[in-house]
Amino acid sequence: MSSSSAAPTAKPPMRDALVAAAFRLFLDRGYEQTTVDDIVALAGVGRRSFFRYFPSKEDVVFPDHERCLTDMTAFLAGGEDEEHDPVARVCDAARMVLRMYAENPTFSVQRYRLTRRVPGLRAYELSVVWRYERALAEYLRSRFAGQTDGTLRADVIAAAVVAAHNNALRSWLRSDGEGDAGTLVDHALGHVQRAFGRPADAPVRAVPVRALPDEGDERPEDVVVLVSRRDAPVWRVVQEWEAALGRA
Amino acid sequence: MSSSSAAPTAKPPMRDALVAAAFRLFLDRGYEQTTVDDIVALAGVGRRSFFRYFPSKEDVVFPDHERCLTDMTAFLAGGEDEEHDPVARVCDAARMVLRMYAENPTFSVQRYRLTRRVPGLRAYELSVVWRYERALAEYLRSRFAGQTDGTLRADVIAAAVVAAHNNALRSWLRSDGEGDAGTLVDHALGHVQRAFGRPADAPVRAVPVRALPDEGDERPEDVVVLVSRRDAPVWRVVQEWEAALGRA
Repeated sequence: MSSSSAAPTAKPPMRDALVAAAFRLFLDRGYEQTTVDDIVALAGVGRRSFFRYFPSKEDVVFPDHERCLTDMTAFLAGGEDEEHDPVARVCDAARMVLRMYAENPTFSVQRYRLTRRVPGLRAYELSVVWRYERALAEYLRSRFAGQTDGTLRADVIAAAVVAAHNNALRSWLRSDGEGDAGTLVDHALGHVQRAFGRPADAPVRAVPVRALPDEGDERPEDVVVLVSRRDAPVWRVVQEWEAALGRA
Repeated sequence: MSSSSAAPTAKPPMRDALVAAAFRLFLDRGYEQTTVDDIVALAGVGRRSFFRYFPSKEDVVFPDHERCLTDMTAFLAGGEDEEHDPVARVCDAARMVLRMYAENPTFSVQRYRLTRRVPGLRAYELSVVWRYERALAEYLRSRFAGQTDGTLRADVIAAAVVAAHNNALRSWLRSDGEGDAGTLVDHALGHVQRAFGRPADAPVRAVPVRALPDEGDERPEDVVVLVSRRDAPVWRVVQEWEAALGRA
């Protein structure tokens, strides 16, 4: 899904050298104590080269988010048609962020530790997370356009996907990048998909019935009887049950 | 739930005067063009008085979040026992934020417009939202301690509650504070509670059954039959259905 790893212009050596120099200094001296001048001196380039790649010192800490946001937006734009389950699509979009982190575990773990220590970087990270969440929510709002509570559902699902992704990502980062990040994120996103995703094609039937009155029963109770195959996904059950109530 | 509206020390006149002066200047001149000196001059107090109440110029834009966070944390701490449905509790906690906004619609709408125009205030707001979300998530993590996927569920539900609350709050702010904010938020939070909340006490029975083989049927199919009252909440249905699968 991400085209950049093979693209020759996506990660020019000078950009990589600036990131490497910046991180060596951040880890040695601390983030606040390192200036852009220090970084360009170590990388052996001029200040203008730095600002060609990075608007600010914060941006060198998160060098790949802009590319990832661009890739994610393009990926979501390619899933506007009916055949794509919108919740599955935003889960796949979130996996693009995970892959960006997992491509370089050492760097990701170093940055995680740095970000936890520097309040300004925490704020920067919050703004990046917010942009991912908005990208997912905008896609879902478009897919749910015209539906009851469409924007509400879009916002809630986008937030749930981001929270599940970040829960798994942080577990992986806290374990120093040991283990399989993909498995952790799949598990976490599966939780969200089961709660909100489109039901698969599995037979469930629910019908409203009126119980036969017992002798002396003044108000026979309406109930719903639902018969499902064992392999029916839970949301197919819920959908059928709710549809049966609506029909009753 | 919030004790501060009646507390004589929560909103001293000088603090109110500083907020009023700040907002008059922000709206007249713009946020960036207003200094703390301008604010204290208009309010007729010294700089030290300003900083006694507000650590920075950003804080005067959001004068009540610290109090609200304190109140929310106390409210959540009072709901650690088993009798409180944890999801209902975090929804009630989110309503405390809504009430803070709804107490003063004019001020809230002005601030909403200001925040949308000033990137630094957006960043500040994101950090506040993040603190609310963490407060809700920490409470849920404690309530779900020892449960399967407890931290994952806690983080996802906290994010969903915040997203639902903010969806309703922003609708209300965009409508210039017209209409009933409480009704909007109740509707939005109801969406989250139906998805994640503890089922109320309503009778649902689900049983796994083995279908009697038809003549010549080689592999009779296992199914689950579920009978529910019409007023059973959806998650009681799901819980019973899943339990029936586990028992089968």
